Amino acid sequence: MTNAVTACVLIIGNEILSGRTQDINLNHLATTLGDWGIQVRHARTIPDVEDTIVATVNEVRSEFDYVFTTGGIGPTHDDITAVCIAKAFGVPITQHPAIEERIRQRPAPDDIMASRLLMARVPQGAQLIENPTGGPQGFSMDNVYVMAGIPMVMQAMLSSLDGELRTGDVVRSHSVRAFLGESQIAATLGEIQERFPIVDIGSYPFFREERYGTTLVIRGADTDVLANVAAAVVQAVREAGEEPEDLGLE
Amino acid sequence: MTNAVTACVLIIGNEILSGRTQDINLNHLATTLGDWGIQVRHARTIPDVEDTIVATVNEVRSEFDYVFTTGGIGPTHDDITAVCIAKAFGVPITQHPAIEERIRQRPAPDDIMASRLLMARVPQGAQLIENPTGGPQGFSMDNVYVMAGIPMVMQAMLSSLDGELRTGDVVRSHSVRAFLGESQIAATLGEIQERFPIVDIGSYPFFREERYGTTLVIRGADTDVLANVAAAVVQAVREAGEEPEDLGLE
Repeated sequence: MTNAVTACVLIIGNEILSGRTQDINLNHLATTLGDWGIQVRHARTIPDVEDTIVATVNEVRSEFDYVFTTGGIGPTHDDITAVCIAKAFGVPITQHPAIEERIRQRPAPDDIMASRLLMARVPQGAQLIENPTGGPQGFSMDNVYVMAGIPMVMQAMLSSLDGELRTGDVVRSHSVRAFLGESQIAATLGEIQERFPIVDIGSYPFFREERYGTTLVIRGADTDVLANVAAAVVQAVREAGEEPEDLGLE
Repeated sequence: MTNAVTACVLIIGNEILSGRTQDINLNHLATTLGDWGIQVRHARTIPDVEDTIVATVNEVRSEFDYVFTTGGIGPTHDDITAVCIAKAFGVPITQHPAIEERIRQRPAPDDIMASRLLMARVPQGAQLIENPTGGPQGFSMDNVYVMAGIPMVMQAMLSSLDGELRTGDVVRSHSVRAFLGESQIAATLGEIQERFPIVDIGSYPFFREERYGTTLVIRGADTDVLANVAAAVVQAVREAGEEPEDLGLE
């Protein structure tokens, strides 16, 4: 990989770790960022605990080109992400006028407005992430992008970043499917992987139409190389005595 | 929390980070271990990269009472979890006779059997985790429990650990639902949280029957305290002008 731009995803929220909520944000981030040319290499799910969030943000923001967080930017006491990002960067928390303006567009009694305005807090120097749902914006601080936890809102915020981020090679997948067990092709597959270290070959068993099978996924940035490796995999499946289904680029 | 037993989950596999596969193992582990009295406090999703797996295992196994891994114990070249666990513990990798015996029960040509026997590799000194699906067993090494990535197989392996692990307080949830926005109750909720630091109060917006609402989830080990806090939350919702639905203990 000559030009990889990498990312870490931080899923922030007790509700994911308790099992109350099934996270679907990582998957959406991985596929969307991947399509843009940003490779998600690592993800962490962490609780709504200040020390943990601050330490984790500081650990990963130096290790990856981008960090994307989801969760903890609402108006209640457990929404501490903005404050934690400010602490991680050692800057004060401030009220952003553009978010405040949006929040005030919907009138509310003073006490409710005071709670809603908590969503206008951003670290000093933060940039806004547009929120096409019309709700309060997210923000970025250096290479850390802070978004909502509700999938619909997170997806809207992410869509507004399309074209705004530094991107690198897009990793593509070329898949071959066959009704054979992983072990029937494991040795050959290992040999092909050694011959083509530039790609990653993954092997994923499935059960379909009451038969066991394996999907072989070849991943890499160069689609010509992917086609060559796929041809080798197709041949390996035939030599193992099964008829492969070449699914092509995904 | 007086008697907390904690866990970290490691989801190992490029297919999760690429977005090809939606992980559902963390959620199952969180709910099942939680019911047993083991609290999942942290989770990481990491690629099939040896250095990363070894370093991550060594980092988290000293920080949490238990580590549960899923993925990377099949028969192909990208299944490197067992080898990585051995390296993390500084012990040789060995072939476990009980796993070998199970694998050999299903006859196969020599080359295929050789690949399948890769699933018998465990770090020296490992204990087995039974696999009720009849496939090769998982293993544990000290406080690190290594299981399959395929959800059905992981769930079967996990079920075999019921009653075998050290457990602590079971964290229960008591929920109250109301058709009001988070901001309408945020301030009062923060006050209740301050009065009862022994519980965690979470606030989760939803959209249902074409109306916005909030589920308030109170979590803690003492169900009497949960009932008291729930009563305070119920009252707070009424004071905000809505009729709460007390969902009780979940």
